[in-house]
Amino acid sequence: MSTGRSSVSPIRMRRVVPEGCTEADDLLVTEEPLEIRLGHGPVEDRREIRLSVTMRTPGHDGELALGFLFTEGLIASADEVVRVTVCANVKEEERGNVVRAELRPDVAVDPSRWQRNFYVTSSCGVCGKSSIEAVQVLRQHPLRPWGAIEPALIRTLTDRIGEAQTVFRRTGGIHAAAIFNRAGELLLLREDVGRHNAVDKVIGAALHTGMDRTDHILLVSGRAGFELVQKCVVAGIPLMAAVGAPSSLAVRLARESGLTLVGFLREGRFNLYAGEL
Amino acid sequence: MSTGRSSVSPIRMRRVVPEGCTEADDLLVTEEPLEIRLGHGPVEDRREIRLSVTMRTPGHDGELALGFLFTEGLIASADEVVRVTVCANVKEEERGNVVRAELRPDVAVDPSRWQRNFYVTSSCGVCGKSSIEAVQVLRQHPLRPWGAIEPALIRTLTDRIGEAQTVFRRTGGIHAAAIFNRAGELLLLREDVGRHNAVDKVIGAALHTGMDRTDHILLVSGRAGFELVQKCVVAGIPLMAAVGAPSSLAVRLARESGLTLVGFLREGRFNLYAGEL
Repeated sequence: MSTGRSSVSPIRMRRVVPEGCTEADDLLVTEEPLEIRLGHGPVEDRREIRLSVTMRTPGHDGELALGFLFTEGLIASADEVVRVTVCANVKEEERGNVVRAELRPDVAVDPSRWQRNFYVTSSCGVCGKSSIEAVQVLRQHPLRPWGAIEPALIRTLTDRIGEAQTVFRRTGGIHAAAIFNRAGELLLLREDVGRHNAVDKVIGAALHTGMDRTDHILLVSGRAGFELVQKCVVAGIPLMAAVGAPSSLAVRLARESGLTLVGFLREGRFNLYAGEL
Repeated sequence: MSTGRSSVSPIRMRRVVPEGCTEADDLLVTEEPLEIRLGHGPVEDRREIRLSVTMRTPGHDGELALGFLFTEGLIASADEVVRVTVCANVKEEERGNVVRAELRPDVAVDPSRWQRNFYVTSSCGVCGKSSIEAVQVLRQHPLRPWGAIEPALIRTLTDRIGEAQTVFRRTGGIHAAAIFNRAGELLLLREDVGRHNAVDKVIGAALHTGMDRTDHILLVSGRAGFELVQKCVVAGIPLMAAVGAPSSLAVRLARESGLTLVGFLREGRFNLYAGEL
């Protein structure tokens, strides 16, 4: 089963090293929403359940659906699913992002077997464009543009969180998120086993103290996926720097939101995916 | 606000290096469920909404709740929340794992503002014990014990996936999950921007081909959190190896399920958190 969507996305970005800056072609991992539906019979109908929307890399989507249904306890064995198909009856831009698992006629869908709740209404659509539009609705104010970044400032950020990552130093197994001001001073750092939680904690702390966030930097210790960039944009923080790679949809969201986005910030080097130099 | 739970958990494990093996004390990052409730007025009542259960590291839970509500669009500003409190009216073992955000009386909870659906019924409880029991219910069969591991076999696993990680080599920004047989042969590898998706894809592929998984190894390129170990146990795979750190709850689940769990598998070294040597 192929959805025709690629697992990598080409992009132009700027590579910044101590000696200077060059424009370069880069490949990002593609991130797009996938909706998994559950139903009986070969035809899509209104009784089918829209089970889950997950941000995934296109490719092997049928296996993803089958594995998800099984490891989360929605089916007890592979033979409870007759087939997984790509839904054709969706909008053009959603094509390839909606799959449907057809259950064997004698298999009932029993929501009480679900240990977590995945059920979602995808009324806002299942494509990159609609995901980005949904963030723009959540956002209270447009971002105040950061302007041209100073490479010397960006390079020092990771050095400044080392001392403050107390749980990381003790366990080696935790994500960190930190807020800096424009001068590069570390204002807040929070750690959590979940990357989303680390970002929610540091933004929650900023909210709690009434901190103005419109001239600040959010640093994350891992990768910059769509959902973390969403949290940064909604929180009104105009510059996000990640130690790891960004995804395709994260860069699109950053560019359409006026967010300055830095990735692969390591050892004095980084890539600028959105924003000015 | 302190819940009295620690962000790190001490543990005994075995450190395996090329020269031999030693028992050692280790510190793991603590992972426990947190339920976030939303309500009006200072008293917990039946109309309040059980909004979300997330696996988090205890500490700064009030900030986590506030940041989550804000960055996911459930509140528009911090002053819509009067206070976040730790719920006292819960079972002893859940104490500290349930917080409640009290909304200002004039703030309505409008589910249509939720871009994703977090609503959960935590009927199975919100503590490590209940999380582990929920997995045992999902699991079809007990794991077939792996027996004593061979360090020489474990050490080679990461070398064997390098060539197969095509998207990682091109983008540097993706998680991998792989299944090996007992001889250490790589059978399946899948990659995804989301770590859960990579595991679901590789298990889905195994299901699709009808592969017997009861004598196999699951390797993950990142950390071993509770939800990934859950997927391994439910899939009936008896040995899981992670390049990164495990969490406290992941180790508990492994030990109570008879899963052999290897962590920090790097450069010929690893830690054995559950299982025999």
